[in-house]
Amino acid sequence: MSGSGALRIHISDPADPRVAGFMSIKERDLTGRQGLFIAEGTVVLRMLAAAHAMGRGIVADAILILENRLSGVDEILAAFPADVPVYVAAASVFDAIAGFNMHRGVLAIGRRDGMAGRDALLDAVAPDALVLAACGISNHDNLGSMFRNAAAFGVDAVLMDETSCDPMYRKAIRVSVGSVLSVPFAREGSIAALIDQLQAKGFAIWGLSPRGETELHDIPPSPRTALLVGTEGEGLPAAILSSIRTARIRQRPGLDSLNVATATGIALHQVARINGFV
Amino acid sequence: MSGSGALRIHISDPADPRVAGFMSIKERDLTGRQGLFIAEGTVVLRMLAAAHAMGRGIVADAILILENRLSGVDEILAAFPADVPVYVAAASVFDAIAGFNMHRGVLAIGRRDGMAGRDALLDAVAPDALVLAACGISNHDNLGSMFRNAAAFGVDAVLMDETSCDPMYRKAIRVSVGSVLSVPFAREGSIAALIDQLQAKGFAIWGLSPRGETELHDIPPSPRTALLVGTEGEGLPAAILSSIRTARIRQRPGLDSLNVATATGIALHQVARINGFV
Repeated sequence: MSGSGALRIHISDPADPRVAGFMSIKERDLTGRQGLFIAEGTVVLRMLAAAHAMGRGIVADAILILENRLSGVDEILAAFPADVPVYVAAASVFDAIAGFNMHRGVLAIGRRDGMAGRDALLDAVAPDALVLAACGISNHDNLGSMFRNAAAFGVDAVLMDETSCDPMYRKAIRVSVGSVLSVPFAREGSIAALIDQLQAKGFAIWGLSPRGETELHDIPPSPRTALLVGTEGEGLPAAILSSIRTARIRQRPGLDSLNVATATGIALHQVARINGFV
Repeated sequence: MSGSGALRIHISDPADPRVAGFMSIKERDLTGRQGLFIAEGTVVLRMLAAAHAMGRGIVADAILILENRLSGVDEILAAFPADVPVYVAAASVFDAIAGFNMHRGVLAIGRRDGMAGRDALLDAVAPDALVLAACGISNHDNLGSMFRNAAAFGVDAVLMDETSCDPMYRKAIRVSVGSVLSVPFAREGSIAALIDQLQAKGFAIWGLSPRGETELHDIPPSPRTALLVGTEGEGLPAAILSSIRTARIRQRPGLDSLNVATATGIALHQVARINGFV
């Protein structure tokens, strides 16, 4: 076992108060409580270590590892500072603490601690920037997928309105493969206020809609582009669509449009390509 | 209540043998049994009616509707032939039959009955055709999403190898928003045999891979194009990749690539666009 990084603490009693935070986490949603969140699996744990090290307001509170997974994550654990406790438990104890596993024996509790808000993120973006703006995204799978796409295509920030769901819900983090921890984001305020702010910052704003005026491939390059997506089904509100330029993804006519995360991926790929972000 | 289409039969006893096929369907996977499958929700029911009417080997065996949903689906039910029984039940009976609902009171049991195989599908494709070929797709969500994308971008057939999962598993049908019932597909044999067949039929075959030689946007138009995708993580086998041309989606370098369904959507969009399928 490596001596680097955080201290290992063996847990033999599932009722040990030091691991109370992990008790039956599958049953609960921590996101409402003190900004806590759950990171599951080695890939996400690695992202959490990187986020913690970056000092952007995402920190690890505690880690819980299944004993026989320890050697496999040793190098990741070494990346956390020594004051983050690493609890280690045998399978029976681990299962008694954390319940039936989706996490494959690798869990962490993280916490938001001073994350930048929308204003600060927009003040900090580079002169060349790509922003994903989202309105009313209520499905955690879709939001997680959108973050994964945002990471793949070099998005500088994901800016959600207050009606969108929390990307730090565990399902969203999992589906994002940890990208929620690497792509800066803010979730606050109205979409109208966000559009005003993006315009003031010189962003070309393109709303994605099946009835968009411009074909996706005709969007011109711009140093700063914001792609705006709404929820599947209803899409973006008409008042919003009428205040910005809109783009459509060419597809077969039919009852049903693309999944919102897939549409976001297709549009981000194109916009990132023409603006040199990939 | 409309008198058109199938006959309505009121069910007051959950143990009624006529609805035995619907008992606790959430617990079971019907796909192994006699080629049966479950259609859930109004959108998928509409697709099932269309598939039944097309006579391509997908038929409806029986329909179960929650009483207070009946008027809302009347027009869809009218599209089924009169020999398809429509069972109608009040909420307590419906729940006792079908278990806790994801289906919102609209269920059908369908059956494969003489669907065309791979040879017949390939013999029947138009001179201009777009095929999605898939190897080792084991996740029903991803496969369902791939069908949804295939439908959006005008794919003529989805051809899977025998190691891919069954697209008529209920989760895949649901995620595909019924596209599994509208896009012709076959799932049989090896991927090597499929490649030989596609080549013999004059298809330009492009394997999608993070390490592809050609950038997606440099794929030239071709009357017949087949896009080949493998499972996430492992991707396409090396022996396959070396026998065909390969394409990559430009993205940020990193540990993790795009979700396979998203990558498929991005690639299908581009290939459909340059070949005039959308």
